[in-house]
Amino acid sequence: LKKLIGIDLGGTSVKFAVLSFDGEIQYKWRIETNINNDGKNIVPSIIESIKENLEQYRITSNDILGIGMGSPGAINGKEGTVIGAYNLGWKTLQRVKEQIESAIGIPFYIDNDANVAALGELWKGAGEGDTDVIFVTLGTGIGGGVIVQGNLVHGASAAGELGHIIVDPDGYVCTCGNQGCLETVASATGIVRLAKDLAKEFKGDSSLKLIIDEGSNITSKMVFEQAKDDELARIVIDKFSYYLGLASGNIVNILNPNTIVIGGGVSAAGEMLIENVEKYFLKYTFPPLRSTTKLKLAKLGNEAGVIGAAWLVRKSISDIKQD
Amino acid sequence: LKKLIGIDLGGTSVKFAVLSFDGEIQYKWRIETNINNDGKNIVPSIIESIKENLEQYRITSNDILGIGMGSPGAINGKEGTVIGAYNLGWKTLQRVKEQIESAIGIPFYIDNDANVAALGELWKGAGEGDTDVIFVTLGTGIGGGVIVQGNLVHGASAAGELGHIIVDPDGYVCTCGNQGCLETVASATGIVRLAKDLAKEFKGDSSLKLIIDEGSNITSKMVFEQAKDDELARIVIDKFSYYLGLASGNIVNILNPNTIVIGGGVSAAGEMLIENVEKYFLKYTFPPLRSTTKLKLAKLGNEAGVIGAAWLVRKSISDIKQD
Repeated sequence: LKKLIGIDLGGTSVKFAVLSFDGEIQYKWRIETNINNDGKNIVPSIIESIKENLEQYRITSNDILGIGMGSPGAINGKEGTVIGAYNLGWKTLQRVKEQIESAIGIPFYIDNDANVAALGELWKGAGEGDTDVIFVTLGTGIGGGVIVQGNLVHGASAAGELGHIIVDPDGYVCTCGNQGCLETVASATGIVRLAKDLAKEFKGDSSLKLIIDEGSNITSKMVFEQAKDDELARIVIDKFSYYLGLASGNIVNILNPNTIVIGGGVSAAGEMLIENVEKYFLKYTFPPLRSTTKLKLAKLGNEAGVIGAAWLVRKSISDIKQD
Repeated sequence: LKKLIGIDLGGTSVKFAVLSFDGEIQYKWRIETNINNDGKNIVPSIIESIKENLEQYRITSNDILGIGMGSPGAINGKEGTVIGAYNLGWKTLQRVKEQIESAIGIPFYIDNDANVAALGELWKGAGEGDTDVIFVTLGTGIGGGVIVQGNLVHGASAAGELGHIIVDPDGYVCTCGNQGCLETVASATGIVRLAKDLAKEFKGDSSLKLIIDEGSNITSKMVFEQAKDDELARIVIDKFSYYLGLASGNIVNILNPNTIVIGGGVSAAGEMLIENVEKYFLKYTFPPLRSTTKLKLAKLGNEAGVIGAAWLVRKSISDIKQD
């Protein structure tokens, strides 16, 4: 059985992995992302790095079924192009598939980074064995991937904009221009925003409030860490949980997936996060559907991207058979 | 090419149609639904009616590819069973497929009535030519069907509970027990509820308010009919439109379908309904996705059910090929 190559292209580093056909990571490495010069060096350095490493591990292109990649920006999967990936410097259309296939001679597949991470969690992570999985990644912003019957949902243009589900029509203004998007209150930045706002009206003892009042920076991690002893931190987490629970409940009312997987930096808060969100999640789910959709933490962490990218390759085989 | 039979099973009547392979209705008829005796006569009378009519039109079972049906209640498509269809008297498990196949000898397919109507609109209605369609039916309650890449989404148990999307967490209590479900404010009953509540605080001249204050019954139809000349009616429609627009916008943020199709009795209000809802729909849609999803009135009216049921049959062929 041939091997798979998975690539997770990000604004600071490019992660690579060679995986077995069954998704076991056999080799992995990373390089820095060189975003200078409108990101013109990114694809050439990826090509070079693959060639070097295959040679080092004595793998020929004949041993490889294909290369998969998760990328920021707006992706055209069929054409294998990327546009508007600003954290890579890619403002104009990048013909990634064309460049990589002609240089390495192996079939290439690409999708949006959050989508690819969703596939990783479906294949080897919290959604293993499921067919319908929603992946929500809580980082600086919020990304998402929607998988139905094992397939990514792309919709008319770009499905899975879960960070822009409106959870409070009178809420904070989002970077997208709308008001009350989930991202404004449930991303790492959103949690800090909630903490600062709720601190203003909080009257009790709180070390979190002291730090905020001093004008020092706080992080979403600090909020979760202090929840045990700090009343304000608990209020912030409760508010965050309400919003994420409301959005997740409504996802069930529309799609009733097997699992909603919560990943991204904020999910490092662990089971405490799930417990808090679950209370609201169950409340806002249509009663007959409660207990049919599970809410789970992501399992693969940083490796979801390369594993899901490899699944893009692996899955292409069964898709071809169906055509 | 063989013909298809589509059946739309409802609480007051059962609609039948014989359709060409391409979905043209060739014959149609209906019988009353006899819900006496726990609905025990329903399936036998369907069998009898099919036999009679095939004979009358001189069609043999050899001419028929299969029979499809939309039914209320919780459906198990594989087993071909229905349970909990209370408006049919079906409290216990009904083995519909088994009875019909053994009596008529033609393959039988069944799905939820709202799902089947969604398929009808996808095949021959407002979503013709699309792959991803959401169907929202605004009647006494609200039903829904979610279609992704031409396939109904069933999820872990029952996707498409669009009437139970929470649009106002502090809103009216729903029959399901939750608060602020879309159904409480955007169904025919919900519109009447909004009108009665908004009439209380309305101070201006309004014939709608006069009728309500007299204690006479109003209908959602009356609200739409009076919108031209009645300020209160316009306020009610605006509030209804806000809720339906918010839910529809969030559907786009999650699934970005080609089309959201609005059907059911309330949709008889016509293009005025779409115009009002669209304002909020666009507002709550993630800006880059505005204009990618269309909001449309259903086209097939009462025939969506039999046409979609026939599509269940037609589609079964291509599904078999892919297995």
